[in-house]
Amino acid sequence: MRKNIVIIGAVAAGPKAACRLMRLRPDWDVTMVDQDSLISYGGCGIPYYVSGDVSDASELRATSFHVVRDERFFEGSKGVKTLTRTRALAIDRKAKTVRVENLDSGEQRDLPYDQLLLATGAKPFDLPIAGADLDGVFSIANLHKAIEIKKRIAQGKVSKAVVIGGGAIGIEMAEALTDLWGVETVLLELAPQLLPRIVDRHFADMLKKHLVEKSVPVYTEESATELLDNGEGRVCGVKTTQRSLEADLVIMAVGVRPRSELAREAGLDVTSFGGIKVNQRMQTSDPNIYAAGDCVALINMLTGKETLAPLGSLANREGRVVADNMAGYPSRFTGVLGSFIMKAFERCIAATGLTYEAARAEGFDADYALTSPPDRAHFFPDQAVVILQLVFDRTSRRVLGLQAFGMMNDSISARVDTAAALIAKGGTIEDFGLVEMAYAPPFSSAIDSINAAAYVAENMCDNRLRRVDLNRFLAWVKDMGIEPEWAVLDLRHPLESKPYVEKFGSDKWFGLEYGQVRARHHELPPGKTWIIVCNAGTRSYEIQVFLDHLGKSDSMVLCGGTNVISRLDVDWLVN
Amino acid sequence: MRKNIVIIGAVAAGPKAACRLMRLRPDWDVTMVDQDSLISYGGCGIPYYVSGDVSDASELRATSFHVVRDERFFEGSKGVKTLTRTRALAIDRKAKTVRVENLDSGEQRDLPYDQLLLATGAKPFDLPIAGADLDGVFSIANLHKAIEIKKRIAQGKVSKAVVIGGGAIGIEMAEALTDLWGVETVLLELAPQLLPRIVDRHFADMLKKHLVEKSVPVYTEESATELLDNGEGRVCGVKTTQRSLEADLVIMAVGVRPRSELAREAGLDVTSFGGIKVNQRMQTSDPNIYAAGDCVALINMLTGKETLAPLGSLANREGRVVADNMAGYPSRFTGVLGSFIMKAFERCIAATGLTYEAARAEGFDADYALTSPPDRAHFFPDQAVVILQLVFDRTSRRVLGLQAFGMMNDSISARVDTAAALIAKGGTIEDFGLVEMAYAPPFSSAIDSINAAAYVAENMCDNRLRRVDLNRFLAWVKDMGIEPEWAVLDLRHPLESKPYVEKFGSDKWFGLEYGQVRARHHELPPGKTWIIVCNAGTRSYEIQVFLDHLGKSDSMVLCGGTNVISRLDVDWLVN
Repeated sequence: MRKNIVIIGAVAAGPKAACRLMRLRPDWDVTMVDQDSLISYGGCGIPYYVSGDVSDASELRATSFHVVRDERFFEGSKGVKTLTRTRALAIDRKAKTVRVENLDSGEQRDLPYDQLLLATGAKPFDLPIAGADLDGVFSIANLHKAIEIKKRIAQGKVSKAVVIGGGAIGIEMAEALTDLWGVETVLLELAPQLLPRIVDRHFADMLKKHLVEKSVPVYTEESATELLDNGEGRVCGVKTTQRSLEADLVIMAVGVRPRSELAREAGLDVTSFGGIKVNQRMQTSDPNIYAAGDCVALINMLTGKETLAPLGSLANREGRVVADNMAGYPSRFTGVLGSFIMKAFERCIAATGLTYEAARAEGFDADYALTSPPDRAHFFPDQAVVILQLVFDRTSRRVLGLQAFGMMNDSISARVDTAAALIAKGGTIEDFGLVEMAYAPPFSSAIDSINAAAYVAENMCDNRLRRVDLNRFLAWVKDMGIEPEWAVLDLRHPLESKPYVEKFGSDKWFGLEYGQVRARHHELPPGKTWIIVCNAGTRSYEIQVFLDHLGKSDSMVLCGGTNVISRLDVDWLVN
Repeated sequence: MRKNIVIIGAVAAGPKAACRLMRLRPDWDVTMVDQDSLISYGGCGIPYYVSGDVSDASELRATSFHVVRDERFFEGSKGVKTLTRTRALAIDRKAKTVRVENLDSGEQRDLPYDQLLLATGAKPFDLPIAGADLDGVFSIANLHKAIEIKKRIAQGKVSKAVVIGGGAIGIEMAEALTDLWGVETVLLELAPQLLPRIVDRHFADMLKKHLVEKSVPVYTEESATELLDNGEGRVCGVKTTQRSLEADLVIMAVGVRPRSELAREAGLDVTSFGGIKVNQRMQTSDPNIYAAGDCVALINMLTGKETLAPLGSLANREGRVVADNMAGYPSRFTGVLGSFIMKAFERCIAATGLTYEAARAEGFDADYALTSPPDRAHFFPDQAVVILQLVFDRTSRRVLGLQAFGMMNDSISARVDTAAALIAKGGTIEDFGLVEMAYAPPFSSAIDSINAAAYVAENMCDNRLRRVDLNRFLAWVKDMGIEPEWAVLDLRHPLESKPYVEKFGSDKWFGLEYGQVRARHHELPPGKTWIIVCNAGTRSYEIQVFLDHLGKSDSMVLCGGTNVISRLDVDWLVN
């Protein structure tokens, strides 16, 4: 039975659903409408277009085979009727029609549907501060804005920029402006850390340090209060809670809000945070109306709660599920973990599942294994340390998340993607210990970093490994009075430990090289609670076991070791 | 209760078990014996040592912190008694002793054990041909051999080499000799393809083409029959079934055999192919005797059959499981998928699970989805095509394997590792379609290549996509008489298709650009069985659906498209 399908929104979920539908039901009528003239673009590529990595905006709208995905493409190649510059005004669920308006002619008409897809996306949140409407203030709302930003930079009109918002887009834009264009760029984030809720604090701090090293000052816990006018209606600066910053370009990247007005006005269920409610088949509360993409609320697989996950990758998958169900092939979108990855200058940061902080807040018996293994065989030339943190539930031994920070290459993808696959399948610490990562020295260690992290988690669950809380340790180094009985047992090579012993005194920072401990442990001064420190934490664990065996069972391991500490903004490091 | 543990073999599984045991049971007595003087080395790193990527052999024996893992290290740092140059001669299971001989003094003695681990490894198979014992003929048996090979090359004594054996070690050695030392190297493989049983033929052929491009001639289906003497006991050439080759160095890399004589002589169960039989706890048929590493037979998770998987990564995991069980923490090694990855010059090739050929032979209703997506967002600067093949069972829809061939970076690790995680969990095509790969343009496509491969598999299972058999297609191009009604419908840009239309005639190779098919399909000559061809296969599928819709339902898609064909050694390509 031939059906009439209307799709509102033509960026990611909409076109994916439309094209899949035409492959499943080539004789159906599929009409896609969008208020914009530019459609079906890779929005996630905008920072790379602004930076110049992608030279022309049309590349973000092109197929792999260099054909621009415009109305003619969808009509001619895909058989999808495509109306751009056409805004959906209202849905009449009884009549099963959508009222649309041609934004050029003003003409209105009703499109009848048997099944409707809302793929209305999200809109950037605009900070309600004075000057937000000045010339030179941009949000990354669509491709037009990106084109305008790049034009201004290329014309030499931008020498100083402020990016408001330390999420992925803000950081990517800061890199784009700085790295290729040499624009002096400052990054502001209201929260105490970059990438809030995506990574734990210490991961955000490692990223922050790298940004600062790459000449992007980062001000956290600081908000913009006013955007300043140069007297001619152009932005010339940003006032914050702490300071005044010059700027001829301001990027607002403070998050997005689902575009769910149409759905709400049509009486469909919408969450309190604006996401359109859908079931696993991506149906809204009206079974003839589906929704997909940035406008929907998805279920987090670990918490079971509704969440927003505005990502092009998910939008595409959701769109495909919609098409399958519309066409009569039952298909489910089973939920989201929040897999995340980004490039930041010469580093990569990624996560999947829950952060430690989020897992605790959700009531899990959460703990984390923080490790700092090499990203490939430690004897292989271009190996580098990666910081890896496995979050797990001590009671159920289920893995809840993985975070990683390392060099800019794909090695972190391998670990985070593998973790996402296992977590979605209910993977336990033991599953992570056994997962069969492909091994050769140019790609991994014989004991893969993900296996090794699971081993650490297992040792923690089995109470063989006691870790010191990282923040408590950092606080103690600044004020050793807070834990008067603590002292560091530094297992590193004397060349590494000696400067610290000299700095803090051997009463507080005792150096005894790993290989000497079995022979010389009697030299350890008595009465100390040892915080055992080495480069990666692995040798520290071994010495903890040894001290336990001797009956000194109150030591704690600095997990991840100095590899973690040296990546944080810590002022007591001795170079 | 304190126990006496004896471990025979100190390369990978042995040291791992020993050190883990000392952490679990610091008061036990653990003694490790090895007939070699050099122990605990990364054998997989040998090609990189020979190439010069790893400058000193001691790096393969060192920890991440540059401490050489010798007897003193294991004794002093780990508390493991370590006897090198000590050969285990016999096991007395009744008395629970191992008879060992000091190879320097000739002294023999009995080591008592409560529990014993056989980690005796594997030995290279020596081809039983004339000249195999000549000077200059090496197998990659241990670090001594590697040191000797590198010494000869560094002294300028090697200008031509023949590597016998097209498995991973043979290929890595060929690269090592050619790339950094400029040794003219020829690779011989008895089987019709490189990496037999690890990848399917067309993957091996892509690898072969790259090796030839990098100046390594590869002769498959060709065996060495004699190694030639220069008259002074040194090798000077190799006679094969086809030709005579000059060589002042010959590497024999024709596989390894488990070292299981001790086990067999002690009456333990050993498979017909020499692997020591173990249960999931890594116990042999004597519950007090464990075995781990290259000497054991493991269970393939997909076939349930015993197999050999001599890999350092598995040896380490198995060793850990042994230690846990010995110490009283029940732990299981659940089997092996055969995850595999290797660098070959500028390419990476990897696989996990079963090949298509192996899956058919095992009786699965196997099929494969062959795709050629970009390895990151197609608009991102350094993106490159990767060839990806998902092997699946059409009946159960379980995924059985993944193979990949692409540029030398870690992007293939991410897909193969994720696949291994899912396959071990019984992952289906649908699981692969939904797996939440972390997405950002520098790392992946919005629809990740692994998701996309699953979509193709799904379309095949649901009989929406009919593929042409690749080999049949290649045969047809050479002799179009074998399928007289076949003709190619080439959807590529006319600049790409025209040379082929001119070469083969429009009766056999018809060009009609993808975007034109809906408007101009009536131009297609009648009576043809269309083999639809494009760059990657995705557009071909879409046109197949369209032709089906028109009632022309006998077309077939060339999966993977010309991206695959152009990587094969095909002489009819037009550049």
